[in-house]
This record gives sequence, C-alpha cells and structure tokens, in this order.
Amino acid sequence: MIPRYSPRVMQELWSEENKFHLWLEVELAVMEAYESLGMIPLGSTAQARKHALVNVEEINRVEEEVGHDVIAFIKVATSSMGDEARFFHFGLTSSDVIDTALSLSLKRATQEILKELDALLTFSWELACKHKDTPTIGRTHGVHAEPTSFGLKVLSWYAELKRIKERLIREEEQISLGKISGAVGNYANVPPEVEKIACEKLGLKPCPVSTQIIPRDIHAEYLATMAVCGGGIERIATEIRSLMRTEIGEVEEPFSEKQRGSSAMPHKKNPILCERLCGLSRLLRGYALSALEDVALWHERDISHSSVERVIFPDATSLFLYSLKLLHKILSWLKVNRERMEENIWMTKGLVFSERALLELISRGFGREEAYLLVQEASTEVREGKASDLKTALGKKLPGLDLSQAFSLSYYLAYLDQIFERFP
Amino acid sequence: MIPRYSPRVMQELWSEENKFHLWLEVELAVMEAYESLGMIPLGSTAQARKHALVNVEEINRVEEEVGHDVIAFIKVATSSMGDEARFFHFGLTSSDVIDTALSLSLKRATQEILKELDALLTFSWELACKHKDTPTIGRTHGVHAEPTSFGLKVLSWYAELKRIKERLIREEEQISLGKISGAVGNYANVPPEVEKIACEKLGLKPCPVSTQIIPRDIHAEYLATMAVCGGGIERIATEIRSLMRTEIGEVEEPFSEKQRGSSAMPHKKNPILCERLCGLSRLLRGYALSALEDVALWHERDISHSSVERVIFPDATSLFLYSLKLLHKILSWLKVNRERMEENIWMTKGLVFSERALLELISRGFGREEAYLLVQEASTEVREGKASDLKTALGKKLPGLDLSQAFSLSYYLAYLDQIFERFP
Amino acid sequence: MIPRYSPRVMQELWSEENKFHLWLEVELAVMEAYESLGMIPLGSTAQARKHALVNVEEINRVEEEVGHDVIAFIKVATSSMGDEARFFHFGLTSSDVIDTALSLSLKRATQEILKELDALLTFSWELACKHKDTPTIGRTHGVHAEPTSFGLKVLSWYAELKRIKERLIREEEQISLGKISGAVGNYANVPPEVEKIACEKLGLKPCPVSTQIIPRDIHAEYLATMAVCGGGIERIATEIRSLMRTEIGEVEEPFSEKQRGSSAMPHKKNPILCERLCGLSRLLRGYALSALEDVALWHERDISHSSVERVIFPDATSLFLYSLKLLHKILSWLKVNRERMEENIWMTKGLVFSERALLELISRGFGREEAYLLVQEASTEVREGKASDLKTALGKKLPGLDLSQAFSLSYYLAYLDQIFERFP
Amino acid sequence: MIPRYSPRVMQELWSEENKFHLWLEVELAVMEAYESLGMIPLGSTAQARKHALVNVEEINRVEEEVGHDVIAFIKVATSSMGDEARFFHFGLTSSDVIDTALSLSLKRATQEILKELDALLTFSWELACKHKDTPTIGRTHGVHAEPTSFGLKVLSWYAELKRIKERLIREEEQISLGKISGAVGNYANVPPEVEKIACEKLGLKPCPVSTQIIPRDIHAEYLATMAVCGGGIERIATEIRSLMRTEIGEVEEPFSEKQRGSSAMPHKKNPILCERLCGLSRLLRGYALSALEDVALWHERDISHSSVERVIFPDATSLFLYSLKLLHKILSWLKVNRERMEENIWMTKGLVFSERALLELISRGFGREEAYLLVQEASTEVREGKASDLKTALGKKLPGLDLSQAFSLSYYLAYLDQIFERFP
Repeated sequence: MIPRYSPRVMQELWSEENKFHLWLEVELAVMEAYESLGMIPLGSTAQARKHALVNVEEINRVEEEVGHDVIAFIKVATSSMGDEARFFHFGLTSSDVIDTALSLSLKRATQEILKELDALLTFSWELACKHKDTPTIGRTHGVHAEPTSFGLKVLSWYAELKRIKERLIREEEQISLGKISGAVGNYANVPPEVEKIACEKLGLKPCPVSTQIIPRDIHAEYLATMAVCGGGIERIATEIRSLMRTEIGEVEEPFSEKQRGSSAMPHKKNPILCERLCGLSRLLRGYALSALEDVALWHERDISHSSVERVIFPDATSLFLYSLKLLHKILSWLKVNRERMEENIWMTKGLVFSERALLELISRGFGREEAYLLVQEASTEVREGKASDLKTALGKKLPGLDLSQAFSLSYYLAYLDQIFERFP
Repeated sequence: MIPRYSPRVMQELWSEENKFHLWLEVELAVMEAYESLGMIPLGSTAQARKHALVNVEEINRVEEEVGHDVIAFIKVATSSMGDEARFFHFGLTSSDVIDTALSLSLKRATQEILKELDALLTFSWELACKHKDTPTIGRTHGVHAEPTSFGLKVLSWYAELKRIKERLIREEEQISLGKISGAVGNYANVPPEVEKIACEKLGLKPCPVSTQIIPRDIHAEYLATMAVCGGGIERIATEIRSLMRTEIGEVEEPFSEKQRGSSAMPHKKNPILCERLCGLSRLLRGYALSALEDVALWHERDISHSSVERVIFPDATSLFLYSLKLLHKILSWLKVNRERMEENIWMTKGLVFSERALLELISRGFGREEAYLLVQEASTEVREGKASDLKTALGKKLPGLDLSQAFSLSYYLAYLDQIFERFP
Repeated sequence: MIPRYSPRVMQELWSEENKFHLWLEVELAVMEAYESLGMIPLGSTAQARKHALVNVEEINRVEEEVGHDVIAFIKVATSSMGDEARFFHFGLTSSDVIDTALSLSLKRATQEILKELDALLTFSWELACKHKDTPTIGRTHGVHAEPTSFGLKVLSWYAELKRIKERLIREEEQISLGKISGAVGNYANVPPEVEKIACEKLGLKPCPVSTQIIPRDIHAEYLATMAVCGGGIERIATEIRSLMRTEIGEVEEPFSEKQRGSSAMPHKKNPILCERLCGLSRLLRGYALSALEDVALWHERDISHSSVERVIFPDATSLFLYSLKLLHKILSWLKVNRERMEENIWMTKGLVFSERALLELISRGFGREEAYLLVQEASTEVREGKASDLKTALGKKLPGLDLSQAFSLSYYLAYLDQIFERFP
Repeated sequence: MIPRYSPRVMQELWSEENKFHLWLEVELAVMEAYESLGMIPLGSTAQARKHALVNVEEINRVEEEVGHDVIAFIKVATSSMGDEARFFHFGLTSSDVIDTALSLSLKRATQEILKELDALLTFSWELACKHKDTPTIGRTHGVHAEPTSFGLKVLSWYAELKRIKERLIREEEQISLGKISGAVGNYANVPPEVEKIACEKLGLKPCPVSTQIIPRDIHAEYLATMAVCGGGIERIATEIRSLMRTEIGEVEEPFSEKQRGSSAMPHKKNPILCERLCGLSRLLRGYALSALEDVALWHERDISHSSVERVIFPDATSLFLYSLKLLHKILSWLKVNRERMEENIWMTKGLVFSERALLELISRGFGREEAYLLVQEASTEVREGKASDLKTALGKKLPGLDLSQAFSLSYYLAYLDQIFERFP
C-alpha cells in the first residue's frame, strides 16, 4: 500500500524484516516442541535462537540465486549456527513456516484494528448520546420522510461499528490457525504433537485438516468480511457527504484553519475525507474478490494465491486501519448544525408529518383509503403553493378536527431512550 | 434463476405467491401484537386472517396502477375485509413488511440448504473413512509431492463442508431479524413492543437499530459468505476434475448408461458436473459483489438495493442448494480407482519419497545442505534416466546405507487415525 | 432474468425455443456450405430444412436420458428426416453449433440494444439543446462549485450514451464470430472452407483461431463493456436522484396520477426509477466479474463457462435493454424546475462566483496568493453572516473596485454553443 | 505495488517526482497556449519553465499544511518565479492539471506495455511456427479429445496476445484525452482554444464534454480491458501449468541450475512462474472492479475515485507489464517434450481417434446413430481392457473394413498451414 494510506504500525507489521522474524518465531517454536518431546537435543533451540541471523538483504540476495524464499531464509538464518542447524526446519515444509507466520501477522493486524475500533466505538457512542434528542429529518430515497433524531443516526453508525467489531473478533479467531503438518498435510515427517505444542506457544490453534497449507476459504472469509465492514464505513461516510451538501448543510467535516478546499474556488469546503473513505471501500471490495478466487487451489495446494496475498493482505489491513483512524478523526471534529437540521425539518411546510396525520385520521375513524387520499390531496395543495402548510390544508378540509398533535416533534423522539437502552 | 439450476423448493419459496403469503404472515403477526397489547379490538386478527385475499394476478394489476407493490398488496388483501381492515398495516411502513418477510425467506432458504448440507456431510464423512487408508499421491503445484491417503483428501472436503455449515448456521442466525420500526426506524407510529411481540411470533429477533430497513451489511455478509462457501465447493470440484484427467484417471464422475460425453467423440467421459459446479461458484461471487455494493444506501434508506435483491437472493440461494445437491450426487456415485492411484505414486520411480530420504540422511548425521544436494543429484539422475529409481540411485552414492524404510507407504499414513479422531 | 426486468424481445431471443432454432440455422448453414462445395448431395439441405423438427419438450426429454443437449437436439431434429440426416451435424462438434449460435444471439441482442440506444440518443440530444441556456449550479463533492447550464449536464449524459453506443457497435463486431473448426479447432473433420461459407451465410466472420470454442476473452470483453456502460447509466441516474432530493428539487422523475410514493407517507415522491437503474448497474458489474473468470479455461476448453453463460448472457442483455428503456422513460417525462435551479445558484449569496472574483482580482494586478486570501476571507464573512453577499463583502474590502461583472451568469454559459457544436 | 512485481520503468513513471513533473508539463502547456493566443505576455512560459521548482519533499510539507496537493504544488513551483507566477495555473482548476497529467501517465504506461507486448508477440509467433507440426493431444474437459499440434496451441496464445495488443492500442487512444475546461467543464475561466492548443502540445485530444474531470467510464474501460487481457494471460499460464503436471510432462517452465523447487522435497520442479501469473490476473480483476465503481460520481465530480486511482493505476499497469515480462521469460525458456506429447496421444490406445472413426463409418454409409453406438461400444471394450486398441476393436466388429486411415496423425494437422496463413 502507498505510504499515504498505510499507518506506521501496518508498515512495520508487513515489512520484509518482520516477516522473517515471524518465520524465525515459528521455526523456533517447532524446535522447542521437538525438544519438549525429547526428539532433539536439549538446548538446541536456545543455541539456534542465539545464533540465528535475520538479514533481509542477504536473504534477498540468496533468493535471487535459489529462486525460493524460505530456502534462502534458512540458509542465512542457519549460517552462523553450529550443530543445532541440523534441527532447524527439520521435517518442515516451507508452508508450515509461511502459513503459520501469516496467521500470526493477520492476528496481530486484526488486533491493531480492533484496538482502533474500540476507541472509535467509545467515541461514536458518546456522539450518539449527545445528539439523542437533536431532531433532524429522516430521509428515504433522498427525499424527506419523517423527523427523527440525529443521535439515532449516529447510533445506527455505532451499531454498524459494533457489528464490524463482532465480525473482526470472529475473524481473528478463525485466522488464528497454525499448521505444521508437512508437505501434504499428513504429518509424514513431523508428528501432530509438534504442531500442537508449537501452535500453543505461538498462541494459535492447529488447523484440524490442512493440505500443504491452511485452506484458503478461511483467508477468503477474512477479506470478504473486511469488504463487508468496508461497506459499513462507506455507509457512514456517504451519510456525512450527503449531509454536508450545500443545500443540506447539517454537518461539516473537519477543515483546518489553513486548509484550502479548491485551487480555483476559495469558498469551497468539501467532504474530501468521507469521499476518500468511499473510495477505499471500493478497494476493499476488489481485494475480497481476488481472495475469493484463491480458494479453489489445485490438489494439496498450488501457489497461485501467494502473489495475490503478498499484495492484498498488507493492502487491505493497512487501508482498513487507516479508514478507521480517518473516520475517528472525522467524527471527532464533526460540526453538527442543529439550527439547520430544524430548518430542514420544516422546509416542506409540515409535509413530513403526513403519516402521522394519516394515522390520526384512521384512529379517529376514517378508512385507510379515504384518509390516504385526504392527506395526499392536502399535500399536493401545499406542494403547489395553494396552502401555506399541511396542518392548515387539512384543517380547511376537516374543520372542527384538531390535528395539531400530529405535528409535534416530540412524537418522533418518544422511543429513543428505549432504543438506546439496548446498547452499549 | 433458470429452472435448470433451481430446486423446486427454492422455486416455491421465492415465488410471487409465497412472497405475498409471507407479507400476510408479517401483517397478521403485527395485528396480533397490537391485539395482545390491547391497542386494537380483540378478534381483529382472526377476522383479517379469515378475509384476507392473496391473489397474485390481482395484486400485479393494481401495482401497474399505483406503482407500488405493498400498496397494491394491501388493497387486494383488505378488499374483502370489514372494519378490521383499518388495523391492517396500521402504523407500518412498507419495509416493515418487506424486510421482515425477506428475513423469513432467507431463514427458510438457509434451513433448506442446511438440511441438504447435513446429508452431504454424513456422506462425505463415510467416504473419507472408507478411503482412510487408500494411498494416493499428494500433489502441490500440480506436481507430485508426497504420498498421502485419498481419505485424507476427502476429509479435507468434509472439513470444508463443515466450515460451510458453521458459516451458514451463523448466517441463519444473523439474518433472522425482524424490523417493525416505521419509516425511519424511530418507532414513531408503532411502539417497540409491537415489534418485539410480532418478531417473536415469527421466530425472529428485533433488529436493535434499523433505519427504514434492516442494515444491508447483514445481507451483504450473507451473500459474501455464500461466495466464500461457493469457493469451497469449487475447490472440491476442481480436485475431482483434475483427478479425472485422462493422464491421472484416479476418480470418475457418475456417468449414466445412456449418457453421451460428446456429440462428436464417442469415447469421451467428461467431468461436466464438476465443471458446472465451478461455473456456479463464479456466479455466486458475482452476486456477492452486487450485494456488497448495496450496503452504503443513502440516509435512512434508498431503494437501489431492491432491484438487486429481487434477483440475487433467489438466484444465489437456488444455485447454492442446487450445487450441494449436485455435489452430493457426484460424491455418491464417484468411482475411485485405487489401482491407478497406486500406479501414479510409483510412476516417478521413487522421487516422491525424496523428502523422507533427505530426513533419513539428516537423522543419520548428514548436514541439511549436504543431504539436500545428494538427494537432488540422485533425483536428477532418475529423471534423466541414468538410474532406475531413487532408492537405487541413492544406494549407489551411499553404499552400505540401508534407506529402504524411507520408501514405505505406511509411513505417510501413520497419523491418519489421529487426524480422523478430530472429527466429526 | 425475472420477467419484471426482461423486455419481451429479450425473453423471446433467449427462449429455449429460439435457441434451438438458432442451432438449426447453424446446422443448415453448414449443410449448405457442404453442398456448395459438392461434399454432400445437392438438395440435402432443403430436405433437412423441410423435415427438421424443433420440439422443445421432446428435446428436453431426450436430454434427461443422454445427458447432453446437442445430442438430444440432433436426435429430435433428425427424427423425421430421411437419408439427409446423415449429413446433419456431419463433422461437427457440439460447440461448433452452440458457440456459433451464441454469437448470433449476442449479435441480435446487441442490435436490439443499439436500436433502443439510438432513440435514447436522439431524445437526450434534444433535451440537452432545450436546456442549453438553462442556468444551474454545478456541484463538486456535492458542494456548490460554479454556475453552469443544465443543458451541459444533459450533454454530458448524451456524450456518455454516445460512448456506450460506440462501445456496443465495437462489441457487436467483436462478437460476430462463427466457429466451425471441430473438437479441438484444427478442422480435422470439417475443412475451413465450410466454416467460411457457413459463417458468411450467417452474417458472421470465422474466428481466426479457435479451440473447441471461440476464446472467452471475447465474451468477457462483451460483458465487461456492458458493466462499463452500466456505470455510465448509473452516473446519469445518480445525478437525477441527487437533483430530486427535497433540498435540491431541481428535477422530478415521472410520477403517474394514481401512483403512490409510500404506503405510510402520502406526501412522498421518490426517485425510484433512477434508484432501480443504480441497482441494475450493480448486477451488471457482478455478471462481468463472472465472465472475467470464464477466460482461463483448460486446454482446448472446459465447460465451466457454460453454466455461467446460461445465466449471465440473458440476464445482462435483458437488464441492459430494460435499463435503457427505463432511462428513456425517465428522461421523456423528466420535470425540470428552472426556478429552483436559479434559486439554488443564489442560495449561497454569491459564494459560487468566488473563482471568477479571484481571477478578476488577479487580472487587475493582484498576486494569486493575495487574491486567494482576500476572496477566502470575504467568503468566510458571508458564510458567517457578517456580510449579506460576496459582492458586498469584497466591495467593502476593496472600495472603488467594480467587481459586478464577476457575478454575471452569462459568463458561465459563454462557450456552450462551441461545446454543443462538437456534437452530434 | 510491491517492488517484487514493479518493473523499474513503472516505478519511475508512477513516482511522486514524475507526477509533479507531469503536472508542470501540463501547466506550462497551458501557459504556452495562453501565450500563443496573446492572452498573457510573451515569454511568460519560458520564464516560468526556467524558475519552476519541483521539490517533492517541500510539496509534501506544504500539503500537510493546506490539505490540498495541487495548491501545495503551485506554491512550491511558483516560489522562485517572478511576475510570471500570476499566469501559472491561471483560470485552471486542480483537475485540469491532475486529470490531463493522469492521461499522460496512462498513455506512457500503455506504450511501455505495448513495447513489451510486441517483443512477446514476435517470440510467440516464432514458437508457434516452430511447433506447427509437433503433434500433441487436444484436451477438452481435461480429458483427451483429438490430436492437434502444439504449434496450434501456441498460435492460439499468439492470437490471444494479438487481441490484447489491439485492445491496448484502442485503450491508449481512448485515454489520450486532455481536459482544461475549468471547475465544472464549461470553460468559464479558460476558453476552449487554450485546451485545444495545450492538448495538442501534450499529444492529447480535448475531451469533448468534461465535468470537472474526464468522465470515469473511460478509465473504467481502461482497467476493465486490462482485466480481460489478464484473463488471456491466465489462460496461457493455466495451460502451461497443466502441461507441466507430473502425469502429463509435456512442457517445463524455466528452472535455473541453482534453483530449488521445495525446501522439503529435493525432487520438485514446480510451475511457480505460471502460478504467479494466475494470481496476478486475480489482482487485475479486483482493480477493474474498483474502477467500475468509480464511474457514477456525483454531479460535476466527487473525489471518491481519487484514492482508488492512486492505488490501482500504478498497481494494475505495473502488474500487467510485469506479467508480460514474466510470460516472455517463461516462453523463451520453455522446454517442450515432443516424445512425451506423442506418448500421451497414444496412451488411450487409439480412443482419441474415435470421431474420425465415426465419420469414416458414416461416410461409408452407416447411419449416425448406428455408427455412434458401434464406436462407443468399441471404446468401452478398449477402456475395459477387452481389446488392445480401438482400431483392433472396431476391426473385430467390422471385419473387412479397413479403417487404418482413421488413425493417422497427419489427418489432424492437414489444415495448419491454412490457419497459420491468417497471421501474423
């Protein structure tokens, strides 16, 4: 991922350097397992750890020669070892190391994301509570529907983020699989006990059945889930972009003192951060698609997924963390314009209270059809300027009927406490 | 979905007729809820149920006129009702009905799929057990790697199907959400209690925060999951297709007596069923993608997802059930050619035992590098016809060393019982 | 595709009945070719045509038995033939027939689409011309940018549709390929001359190199192109949806007298047709994706693409034609609210003229930075209510400078004739 | 894109440094246009070019402050200019610069790709010619079909690459669009003549109607096309992977002396380069998808596409060029095993000649059905070991009939010259 969208922690996590260190972590965990089973001399692991060399440049140089990254890694790692080198990578196939280390990377990446998500959840919950009783117009199809509260909107974001968290916790668990089962998954050259002990040391569970690798439906689910979550963030961003439209003007993205909205138009303030979030979610969908095609590998594995994963795992996890951080920044500095919200509610002269009026009529004995037509007619009159507002228009048609309670905002906020009580 | 790939049960489930019946189910559950809360006259629901009319043709005719399907449905449904009609759809918005009914459809569709999946799981477990000790060559990169057992391959399919089951159970639960919260999700015209009672009657949970609709990340996750699962089925199908290649010939798809493989080539037997499964998984990925784009709706909802869902939910669930049934048929009649499997293991003259030989050398004191080069050299001799087989080639290089135990098949099956014990 | 979104002409084109008729067309064209080359008895084709039976039910019945659709078709088609039956399908492989017929279907489907597109182009050109001088605010990031003309917006739609037309003409040509080259594309049992003559009769060109089939990158390009075109339609629909927002109110989708926008809210008029167009474009993207995965078939072909194509070709072409028809309807009845457009231009009190003011200052000798800051400051004053409008605010800062010509709408429409002259 | 998959030329082309240089190129072309129209003082451009500063670090520093990359660029670029700075970026909007420069980048990237493609085409044509008469078995469904020539396979790759070339030439032309039309595409602050002259200087055509930007269907088509092309490369790679399977062994990817196939199995030679190509094509599909979602921007533009394009344009063009280079390397060193090809043809004991036998029988007067059943029966006997080969089996059934000419390989190569003559 380009530096612009890569949080430092992800750059480090996915660096070549760190990859080799994770490989070493896995190799040593396996040696320890052998040791604890009495299969290799006591102390071998300690010796190996002491003399292991992780030198990115040197490994890359050797890879040029042998055309195989794990072999290059082993050559370099063991180059200063003594006899213990014999037990380094003993009985293993490259994928035992790579795939187990990949799980470690993904687990740690997910933990970083979850950490950020927790902060975001806390903040959005507060924002929702703060605006629980801030009336705003609800819109469906982009058209005014009925009044609601801005806090309820934010609560819906909070709930979206909470679902994201639940999914990521689930995926962190799903991906926390190790695999030390050899070239075709039958433990031919390394007994299952070694896998069990090594995985435990690494904080992973053994994959119940592997081939040469951990089955890729698990990784596809991880990235498909991230795409689903990206869609949720896009939903929030799209809402803010819409509310920041000139004609709506209900919220405003952070905009620093010195910032300039346009090189040409000095008056512009644009929702560029939220637009960016929308773009990033498209990338996440693209990565998910590539991952979905990685599932149906040939036989005990083909390596076609590898080039894909070298790109999409760092890219997707970096982008996702970046997106959360950006969303956090946006929400933290979001300007909320209560006056404009209230103005917008009334801009259609009471039309948005039409359902309430309809139900009021029904509850006073009108048939549904009759009531619907009455309210529709009155609405048309208002829309065409023949009546000042819906209450007046209905009043003229139904003299003597007091419908004023149908036009109260409090009505639309009545159940908010009850909804909020379902969280957090 | 075209009839060719639509199991009858899905055709019925997704029929217009059934859709309207589910809408009625939801409307009546809401009336019952009102009744139990004393908000409408006792007996209204019973009356409504008795007189409700569900006439697809008539509803479609009215829709032409009013341009709104739920309004058309209500008009027709209540056309023979008496006073109880006033309480039909009372306080509801269309999406309360449509979305809750959609959850019912998806829940039922998932249950049908899970039923088929259970049968498939049982069968594939048996198939795995039957071939637990059938040796076969494991292949990575399409190239012979090491011997393994055909039962282990099937166990890996079984585990794939089991993960599919776990995912679908999870998704069934996720999708089992009802939503009776009105036009913008604030319960303005219908109290939360009604939703709670109605949902309970329908076997659903209330969606904690809805807008006009249930948030679409939930539906996107459903279809993204189905795409992940489709990838798993594709993996199994791809394996069978490969094993049925002329040069491999280890398994054979069912082929009926009268069937013809080709209009031109009377000798052909082709893995057309498995190829079909691969194609269908591509469709599932396409549907997931469309669903992922449905998440970021505008404000309290826009209806752009609706046309998408009219197509992809019936199509994806039908295809998926069809795929499982087809896979079940394939596995049930799969011919397994043990002789060919054994021949294939030995066709490379012992080369596939090279890792075992390598480890044997290391464990007898050779350094890893030295051993690797020795075995690689011997392998090259075999490949170039300079030696009859690997055992002989190594024997010549290392006279006096008995490596015969490195060439035993039993070695590769040693841990199978232990793996199988992890299931079912 | 569900009937709701399938124009009748596409339903017929993609019917089983028509498919078999196209197969027959191909088979007979091949017989004619043989005849004209003197390879089969004169008159065979005429006899075959006379006695050929195309009975969908019967063919399906036989397919159940033989598990192969072309073989079933041949059996039924030739069932009443005499000796000429020997030359029916002579030397052909199924795909010669299926793939050549598929090209005919796609060609015809594309022609239907192009016909509709022409009508749409004519209409949108007129609409653009009609509103060439209708001022409206241009928006970037959803925020007011500078005035422009509504006709220019529509011209941009027109240009989008024109690009769609160019692409489809190109794709019609690309897909107009026949293939009568036998089981593996080497003309083993049918000489290239037959292909040449038969293709000519069918209005197709011979595929320069085929395998068993026409290479699928060609079909993938067809559907990828359709997805690109769908994106263009989505852009137009998104614009209309936005302009129909309550706060904007510049245009209105057609809404019939008896239509109802909402079952709950009698005042609603929603852009449901444009929302539908947006949804349909998501489906087109999904189909493209599935088609892209059909390219890399195995060797001389595997049949995994077939199940995909049974679904996506009818679905995509039907949806696309439907979308064009729907867009045509929307544009035909689009209400354009010129007053509202003008009001919206001025709603920000001249801020949208800021770039013009900036350039005016620069051209009068101010430095770019200095001018930018001046205009930005004045803009802020307007936005914060400290000045009534931008002209006044700048006037106060720069007494003696007449900037009134920077606030003229005509300035923004000055080059429209020149732009329009580039078309049609 | 990670360095591993980024050819140097693409790294440079997409560097920050080069981007700013292209921006400068565009700004100066516009100044020249102004100059040639007499709108700014003669010599301004020369002065600007002389004093323009492109300092990546400094620009990035300023961007941090103003939150806008083009404004930062202008500030730095003009920082050492004199009065000519007033005319730098005069009348332009950021996108005039960015979008026009992007077209330059894409044009140059496409040219680099086309250059590599030409070399690949030349080589693959030679390879096809070299193996025109090398018999090999054609496979459909992974199952032996009929003999063909390996050269014809390669010719089909050549034709695939030729279609790729034609598409890319088309796309290079499509993308060669400039746009100097201001903030909303109406040339409010810069007359169309400037665009025309500037574009000509830059080797681009003016976009006939733009909004703030060049419409994104054009960019989506570019990347969708690249995904289609990626599918073609994947097809070639998949074929090689298959032919390199142990059981098939007909070709071999390059494998260097010191290379190691596996850390565990010293005997392995794996088609890792072709597998990599397959993976990369999945990434290209993902990028296309993201690009397709960039089309429907809001009004005169929203900037959501920008973050997407920062990633996918460099990534897709780099990967694509890398893929072509890799494919070139693979083909250049491909080992073709003619003996194995011939062995494989005969491994099914003549079954692959079944269609030829069928046609032979028909041409000798047998009915199609009768002949089909005869050949199918004989095939079954061979398959079940009841007959040594198909010729013998048929001979027994039809004594006196000499069918030997149906079993000649030359028959399948008869039309190759005619096919090859269609190229290059």
